[in-house]
Amino acid sequence: MKFQIKKEVFLKGLNNVSKALSTKNLIPILSGIKLNLTNEGLFLTASDNDIGIETFIPADKLEKIEETGKTVIQGRYLLEIIRKLESSVINITLLDDIKVLISCGKSEFNLNCMEYDEFPNLNMEEQKDPIVIKEEDFKDIINKVSFAVSTQETRPILTGINFKIKDDKLECVSTDSYRLAKKTLKIESNIKEEVNVAIPGKNLIELTKILENDKKNIEMHIFSNKVLFKFENTMFQTRVLGGNFPNVERLIPDTFELVVKLNKNEFYNVIDRAALLTSEKDKNIVKFELNDGELLVSSNTPEIGKVEEKMSVEKNTDENIKIAFSSRFMMDALRTINSEDVLLNFNGDVKPIIILDERDKNLLQLILPIKTY
Amino acid sequence: MKFQIKKEVFLKGLNNVSKALSTKNLIPILSGIKLNLTNEGLFLTASDNDIGIETFIPADKLEKIEETGKTVIQGRYLLEIIRKLESSVINITLLDDIKVLISCGKSEFNLNCMEYDEFPNLNMEEQKDPIVIKEEDFKDIINKVSFAVSTQETRPILTGINFKIKDDKLECVSTDSYRLAKKTLKIESNIKEEVNVAIPGKNLIELTKILENDKKNIEMHIFSNKVLFKFENTMFQTRVLGGNFPNVERLIPDTFELVVKLNKNEFYNVIDRAALLTSEKDKNIVKFELNDGELLVSSNTPEIGKVEEKMSVEKNTDENIKIAFSSRFMMDALRTINSEDVLLNFNGDVKPIIILDERDKNLLQLILPIKTY
Repeated sequence: MKFQIKKEVFLKGLNNVSKALSTKNLIPILSGIKLNLTNEGLFLTASDNDIGIETFIPADKLEKIEETGKTVIQGRYLLEIIRKLESSVINITLLDDIKVLISCGKSEFNLNCMEYDEFPNLNMEEQKDPIVIKEEDFKDIINKVSFAVSTQETRPILTGINFKIKDDKLECVSTDSYRLAKKTLKIESNIKEEVNVAIPGKNLIELTKILENDKKNIEMHIFSNKVLFKFENTMFQTRVLGGNFPNVERLIPDTFELVVKLNKNEFYNVIDRAALLTSEKDKNIVKFELNDGELLVSSNTPEIGKVEEKMSVEKNTDENIKIAFSSRFMMDALRTINSEDVLLNFNGDVKPIIILDERDKNLLQLILPIKTY
Repeated sequence: MKFQIKKEVFLKGLNNVSKALSTKNLIPILSGIKLNLTNEGLFLTASDNDIGIETFIPADKLEKIEETGKTVIQGRYLLEIIRKLESSVINITLLDDIKVLISCGKSEFNLNCMEYDEFPNLNMEEQKDPIVIKEEDFKDIINKVSFAVSTQETRPILTGINFKIKDDKLECVSTDSYRLAKKTLKIESNIKEEVNVAIPGKNLIELTKILENDKKNIEMHIFSNKVLFKFENTMFQTRVLGGNFPNVERLIPDTFELVVKLNKNEFYNVIDRAALLTSEKDKNIVKFELNDGELLVSSNTPEIGKVEEKMSVEKNTDENIKIAFSSRFMMDALRTINSEDVLLNFNGDVKPIIILDERDKNLLQLILPIKTY
């Protein structure tokens, strides 16, 4: 293997696949990046057994291919070296199949290679009719639901985001059993069977980090045990979680006794300040009391003090309410709202609070109240 | 106590004194900020027993003084509350000596006060003839020597920066016994006796964080057991370390067998890359081999690989050298060099390496070589 490549081109490819580098070091080969140079171009691959990423740099983006070949190189070192080299063109040469020489200008790195045959085969299969979504829409969905996945391993299925596809509708749901986020998107699809898979939330967050061309498309190739995302010259494969994601529809009411409309930013700041005197161990509880057109948000920690915040709101009935919830959960939910106004929907003080974007009917956030009275 | 104050004015004062807030919580009152409102203005004070800071906001910078008075408020909460309030003018009112009401717009915070009499007296004394230095010069000294203080508590005196004043010369030295940083400054002083104190390095770093007006002066009031820094409306007091700081002059040679002149940035990047394949546990050793006009910097970690970097240098004799040192220490030292070129001074491969700024004769960095051959 012998080739020349521009620093920026190599770095971008390495950055993409590095998201799959294993940090656990349990299986040494998984700390490596596989390089496979063919006459068509250079394939870079990394995997931590949970996700696998392959990115392809076509021959016309390489400066020179002198000899094809393949090897596996310590990923973190390779990335840091390329990042810190100063020349614009870098020479990569495989020596005796056991060392790789990286040189440019007056810098020479000799790195030990890893055993090529030990690198796992990722079996990146594609489907004939993948689901196609705009990258910006895909990122938006993940950003608006991923924060609500569970971080507890007690119910592993809840660490995932549930992707359901039926007809022309994609629905993504996450829940940690105290709150829930749901976002739907109209898609074009030829899928005959309904899809229902749960994909680890953290893997999807890694994926959004390497998506950059918002106007282009991303393809989803869904299998029973894995999902392959394909975009530009990169393939990102993730396992899916075993088990059935809970059906959350029964938790979401259709009608509400009380709907309150608030300025989103003002409400966010009110909650943020009221949360100052709360503590993590008390679930950062704030109280929410509605008296006609005036809302009182308060918190009270006897050792420290109390806070009262008032703001004007609009509502749809004569109903008033006194309810309490986690300020952190409310702020997480409010951050997903793009409109100027947010709608809070209530059915009494023990039923879930539904938070809706005034203009985006495809987004729903739910948080459970906390009993304090 | 009752007054009105602009948010930015209050926040700046609180930010200044908050650097002295105790994070250890061993003595509850030290997590508080003392407010003392007189007709002259508002005094804010905090202390963690290691440093004490008092800042004064004169009456003409307050919006309104309705009633003088004094109290102590939980510092972290007070700072966060003021930071997050939205109106430009904030009302502070002491209620029954046990609660303080902070209000603005539709926000009301009621905080429990702490016991005023429990707050320690900081005894901030001044001297008749303090040492006066420009803030920018003072910051420059601390930035160029503070990184070399010891982080080990085995020899506490080495966690300090040694301030020595004799005639019109201030000399600051720090050392962790593997390296040393020294910076001197010509000052105007009427001091009759020589000064020789060691001030905790971390306290001086905190002090530089709140210095902002580089053109103004800072006064040093030096006592046997404490030093008071005074600037604008703020006083910053720190304890001094007990014991004698080692006399380092005997470590610094006057003559050198070999002086090498290098481009500072190029050399820094060479060391930075050579360090990529080294590890903390092996002291990040790199080898430095001079062969006439060419320098070879290399490192070798058998499990990973090796790196060789070459660069052209100038030198003053026919001597060559083969020496090894910590890349991290060398990079720390090089970061203090402002000139384009740096001078490395050697007396064989086991004596200290002296690193000089080509243009600033008042700065000296020393690192010990590491024996590898």
